[in-house]
Amino acid sequence: MIGGGQGAFIGGIHRMAAALDGLYELTAGAFSSDAAKSRATGVLLGLAPDRVYGSYQELIEQEQQRPTAERVQVIAIVTPNHLHFEPAKLALQSGFHVILDKPMTFSLAEAKQLQQIAVASGQKLCLTHTYTGYPMVKEARQLIAAGTLGGIRKVYVEYPQGWLSGFEEGSDNKQAAWRTDPARSGIAGAMGDIGTHAFNLLEYVSGLQVEKLCADINVVVPGRRLDDDGAVLLRLSHGASGVLVATQVAAGEENNVRVRVYGEKGGLEWQQADANTLLVRWLDRPAEIRRTGTGYVGSFAQHNTRTPAGHPEGYLEAFANLYRNFALALQAEMAGQTAAPEALDYPSLADGIRGMAFIENVIASGHSDTKWTDFVA
Amino acid sequence: MIGGGQGAFIGGIHRMAAALDGLYELTAGAFSSDAAKSRATGVLLGLAPDRVYGSYQELIEQEQQRPTAERVQVIAIVTPNHLHFEPAKLALQSGFHVILDKPMTFSLAEAKQLQQIAVASGQKLCLTHTYTGYPMVKEARQLIAAGTLGGIRKVYVEYPQGWLSGFEEGSDNKQAAWRTDPARSGIAGAMGDIGTHAFNLLEYVSGLQVEKLCADINVVVPGRRLDDDGAVLLRLSHGASGVLVATQVAAGEENNVRVRVYGEKGGLEWQQADANTLLVRWLDRPAEIRRTGTGYVGSFAQHNTRTPAGHPEGYLEAFANLYRNFALALQAEMAGQTAAPEALDYPSLADGIRGMAFIENVIASGHSDTKWTDFVA
Amino acid sequence: MIGGGQGAFIGGIHRMAAALDGLYELTAGAFSSDAAKSRATGVLLGLAPDRVYGSYQELIEQEQQRPTAERVQVIAIVTPNHLHFEPAKLALQSGFHVILDKPMTFSLAEAKQLQQIAVASGQKLCLTHTYTGYPMVKEARQLIAAGTLGGIRKVYVEYPQGWLSGFEEGSDNKQAAWRTDPARSGIAGAMGDIGTHAFNLLEYVSGLQVEKLCADINVVVPGRRLDDDGAVLLRLSHGASGVLVATQVAAGEENNVRVRVYGEKGGLEWQQADANTLLVRWLDRPAEIRRTGTGYVGSFAQHNTRTPAGHPEGYLEAFANLYRNFALALQAEMAGQTAAPEALDYPSLADGIRGMAFIENVIASGHSDTKWTDFVA
Amino acid sequence: MIGGGQGAFIGGIHRMAAALDGLYELTAGAFSSDAAKSRATGVLLGLAPDRVYGSYQELIEQEQQRPTAERVQVIAIVTPNHLHFEPAKLALQSGFHVILDKPMTFSLAEAKQLQQIAVASGQKLCLTHTYTGYPMVKEARQLIAAGTLGGIRKVYVEYPQGWLSGFEEGSDNKQAAWRTDPARSGIAGAMGDIGTHAFNLLEYVSGLQVEKLCADINVVVPGRRLDDDGAVLLRLSHGASGVLVATQVAAGEENNVRVRVYGEKGGLEWQQADANTLLVRWLDRPAEIRRTGTGYVGSFAQHNTRTPAGHPEGYLEAFANLYRNFALALQAEMAGQTAAPEALDYPSLADGIRGMAFIENVIASGHSDTKWTDFVA
Repeated sequence: MIGGGQGAFIGGIHRMAAALDGLYELTAGAFSSDAAKSRATGVLLGLAPDRVYGSYQELIEQEQQRPTAERVQVIAIVTPNHLHFEPAKLALQSGFHVILDKPMTFSLAEAKQLQQIAVASGQKLCLTHTYTGYPMVKEARQLIAAGTLGGIRKVYVEYPQGWLSGFEEGSDNKQAAWRTDPARSGIAGAMGDIGTHAFNLLEYVSGLQVEKLCADINVVVPGRRLDDDGAVLLRLSHGASGVLVATQVAAGEENNVRVRVYGEKGGLEWQQADANTLLVRWLDRPAEIRRTGTGYVGSFAQHNTRTPAGHPEGYLEAFANLYRNFALALQAEMAGQTAAPEALDYPSLADGIRGMAFIENVIASGHSDTKWTDFVA
Repeated sequence: MIGGGQGAFIGGIHRMAAALDGLYELTAGAFSSDAAKSRATGVLLGLAPDRVYGSYQELIEQEQQRPTAERVQVIAIVTPNHLHFEPAKLALQSGFHVILDKPMTFSLAEAKQLQQIAVASGQKLCLTHTYTGYPMVKEARQLIAAGTLGGIRKVYVEYPQGWLSGFEEGSDNKQAAWRTDPARSGIAGAMGDIGTHAFNLLEYVSGLQVEKLCADINVVVPGRRLDDDGAVLLRLSHGASGVLVATQVAAGEENNVRVRVYGEKGGLEWQQADANTLLVRWLDRPAEIRRTGTGYVGSFAQHNTRTPAGHPEGYLEAFANLYRNFALALQAEMAGQTAAPEALDYPSLADGIRGMAFIENVIASGHSDTKWTDFVA
Repeated sequence: MIGGGQGAFIGGIHRMAAALDGLYELTAGAFSSDAAKSRATGVLLGLAPDRVYGSYQELIEQEQQRPTAERVQVIAIVTPNHLHFEPAKLALQSGFHVILDKPMTFSLAEAKQLQQIAVASGQKLCLTHTYTGYPMVKEARQLIAAGTLGGIRKVYVEYPQGWLSGFEEGSDNKQAAWRTDPARSGIAGAMGDIGTHAFNLLEYVSGLQVEKLCADINVVVPGRRLDDDGAVLLRLSHGASGVLVATQVAAGEENNVRVRVYGEKGGLEWQQADANTLLVRWLDRPAEIRRTGTGYVGSFAQHNTRTPAGHPEGYLEAFANLYRNFALALQAEMAGQTAAPEALDYPSLADGIRGMAFIENVIASGHSDTKWTDFVA
Repeated sequence: MIGGGQGAFIGGIHRMAAALDGLYELTAGAFSSDAAKSRATGVLLGLAPDRVYGSYQELIEQEQQRPTAERVQVIAIVTPNHLHFEPAKLALQSGFHVILDKPMTFSLAEAKQLQQIAVASGQKLCLTHTYTGYPMVKEARQLIAAGTLGGIRKVYVEYPQGWLSGFEEGSDNKQAAWRTDPARSGIAGAMGDIGTHAFNLLEYVSGLQVEKLCADINVVVPGRRLDDDGAVLLRLSHGASGVLVATQVAAGEENNVRVRVYGEKGGLEWQQADANTLLVRWLDRPAEIRRTGTGYVGSFAQHNTRTPAGHPEGYLEAFANLYRNFALALQAEMAGQTAAPEALDYPSLADGIRGMAFIENVIASGHSDTKWTDFVA
């Protein structure tokens, strides 16, 4: 693992997600660019001292020199955005598979470059767009892909948060500090941090691609250096249209990412606050409540479920599904087998490119006086 | 009552709303431009035959000739949009108060003219924007007006319907026929029918006014002659921004109009599907569930409630609140008294002008390639 | 109307319920045993002074002397329990139909006597068990009666209130005063006031009858003279069993009466807090959400609905359904026609007898040390 | 680990719960009494072959002979009920701490014996009553313990399942087979399997103890050998009363265990289907929604939370909280420190004794004709 030292948020999430199914063992880390801090984290995590490194370069180089059977196979990179590209590049080129936190890189140009590097390296990359790991999100995608709702007409996705309603970066809130800092986050704040999740969820569930967008991007809290709010009108493939909302100033909101998709015959709705439920509405018959862990859900939902119906699965399980599917896909590859479609269903390079393109296009549209901006990827 | 013959929808709603509190008695009607049909409706409603008329002109003229104590005092106009202006004009000028279904008229120009006529006549007009009649909508407005949430930053309002997902106007659906007909509805379909409700609800609850908008207006169902779908980015007074969604092709949706408003300190959410609840979220303490009929709600909610907490009040009660407040305001005026603020709180001319301006501005924006269109009223 | 003077609760509810559909006109009343108070109420309601009476005897006698076409046809009795029997008896024997608030009488013996009187009189009686007036309650009954759930195994019904958590009868709470007074309420408090509603709802929805019960009846608030809490184990016909809970000391609860019934193939759930929804669960497929006002619901639900799906109907509409169906049944009878089953579906004498029997049996069981008490009606 | 071979359910849950926080490493197992099957499971889990045993005796004996630093410290026993006592006894007496699935043993007598053995051994035991591991359940307990609701008056707990609505033990459903078999489950079916969970949750949250009970215990499905349904009236300490429902024939229900507690000032409600929410109602102010991961919840909820508010935590995290707290308590003990109250808050011997006493008392009451049975522990 690269990054994820004490005080970080997402590093701990990655570790729990990796541990849940016993498919990964954390054996080495460069948890901080501060070597002492990295070591301290290593001690807490019970790692062998010689596997805790003071920099990502050191980690990659030294692990590479270990015998194949004794070195790490996959490197998880959980640093802020500006520190994604270089470690990922070096890891891929050094023969390691990579699990990378989203958004993929600092810029679209970097993302495209990383894609080329990854392809050339023959290594695999998994991007942690968590929400597509939920069983009922997968059920939604599978239902739509099967044509159950007919042609898709409308999509609505929203990610409302309230935690940046005040000037949190003025206090010692480490998360607020880097996420509102252009030097570490990139050109987007809310749109990069949560807008990309909403965008990815939307394209994943609907099976459509955004083709044009019209964005209203705002900095609501005085003094903030990056957008903390936005709303985007969308034109999608096959004539669909929609709305994407991402805001960090919806005071009192937690993380209730929600997606609704409507087709000719019906619509469906999923929200993280009720993550084990998929509501499917029909034009002329009662709406139905599809639930995680039941016998009637599709193969993708079933594959990504660990407990019987009614025993809720949450965010960590969704996150762990990314890790698990990536492991299953790698295991199949190592064994010379074809992985099941359910195992190959994890966010990867293509999602990363789309996400970075979303950031650049949505910010460009926010600055434009023209209504529609073409989505260029 | 003018309009509301057999087969109509909203006429029956008006009659029930008027009857609920015993403040109105239905004594005369021109229920249809077909005199026989009007008479038939009159029989069904138990009216005296000499009070059932074959045209609105006849109704107004003949009622005007009756002794003051024996003639109708208020005329409810429940016809399609293109038949609002003329009857309302004649009624006002003939000395009758008017209850008018929304949107106010066929065009903004007509609305402005009607406003002048009403003011000149000294008669009062009540416009039936139903949703502002709900106790918890009033509670929301009162909380925000009192500054409870701090300065308002974000507003989201949506009115999703699914009933026009198919080409209903191709069947014998009378409601679909006139609501999708430019000659009877005006320049807007969904935006006029339900968009104006959403718009009115938004301005009512937030206390803000839309200043600019950017609309994506669509005709989704092939062959349809008016918009059946739209999404609108909004810029509001005091620096707030927001999104309005109105669609009639969200297959499976009923009428779950929903509004969310976020300020510096917290946010609130109301939706018709859970109409007796107002959810108020806070930055740093538990969200609270405010409920109709409880002792702790404000004076406006209390005034508009008929049953104890937990006995739900619905759409008809909300509608009846418009009727009741209008009656109380008229009674106060007749008695030479000042009506309570709670009684004066019914949608009126100003709301009607704003609504018609919304229709014209939103359709103009829909046709524009420029991002922001100034809201001109 | 007998009872329902100023300060009363249920009288106003009856008047709104009666007015909603225009099928009743309130023309006479003895609103209080205090003649001055009765007159004052009459003035407020706009009645002719000569139709406002100082006692129920006076009302019945004088109305009876009026020409048939000019006298009241139906008398609503909305007094406390100890004043149900005598007015109802006199009204029936004098040739008036009766709408009677629940529970039917002060005692089971009175109820049986009233039943005989009613039958002998040829007049009809409607008992206002409100909750069976909800469209989705009727849908539940119709689904179960059709065998959709298979044989019924389990029933759970609960009526939790919190308004008597304190010693309210010690203040000037008029409702609390008579409802906790054995001289006015009878032998039961909570069990009579809301337990009978729960019992009626249970038998109505399930189509089963309670055969044995085992009750835990409590007086929770010190100083109270009647039970304010109870829970009852039930044995029902056809081998089903269940639980009934009624309490007035569930602090913070409003009036969320709720019923759940489970059969061999599935179960259903209805609660007043979400009154327009019936949740139907299945063993092996997604649960479904049945909604008021949709096209797919059964004839009973449709008949008892006034607004399109998504425009909620509430307590007053449910109450009004009792009034409306009673009127439709009487109209059919007067016209020498057979009323539709949907119109005949209002709570009547048989429900009243069952309800009074419930009160006597449940209180008896509460005092018994034997587990099961036979339900004797 | 003892038990938990392929095809088992709860073994996998234990393994994930143990793995989540990196505080346990699975190093040895006797996964089945069939040695070949045990080995196969060991291979799947990646264990060293010499740490996979063919019987629990072998595991305990051979692990005991390993050097202290190389042997297992804690043994998780995840076998059916009839195989709890002997392995637990041997493990404790051999110097291992024990994590034991519920109910504690096959009979109350065994449970008491095991308690004595545990105390004598100086080893610790953790019983996996999962539901008390949820953060919001802990918040409920802490609020009530602090007197926030005033004196407790009413408690309602229910655990409805539907999976045994048919004669599942007649098919090859392994779970149904042993859970309905008196030789493996003990004297109770539903009451032992889920009734004990409900009972434990009730006593844990309310801080009260059941003193008397009155049970209706049923075998609903023909041919079944143990109860699959029951409802119990409860008398608790400090004058409270309540109802416990546990059923496995509520067709369509998943595992929505739910608890409600009402005191003099307010009430609270928690249900597994919305596990991250605790609803707290008040007599005279809006109900509040307390949420996992927020800053305002108490120390117990905070201690047992892993993700920020709005990222749901589920069943596995609740289960993992038992494992984590047990580990923290053991670590503190080994370090000669006093563990924090939050770490010591895991279900243990006393809960196990109460649970087994519940089984024996509730079944006795089910057979009794007397209303109240004293709860004897």
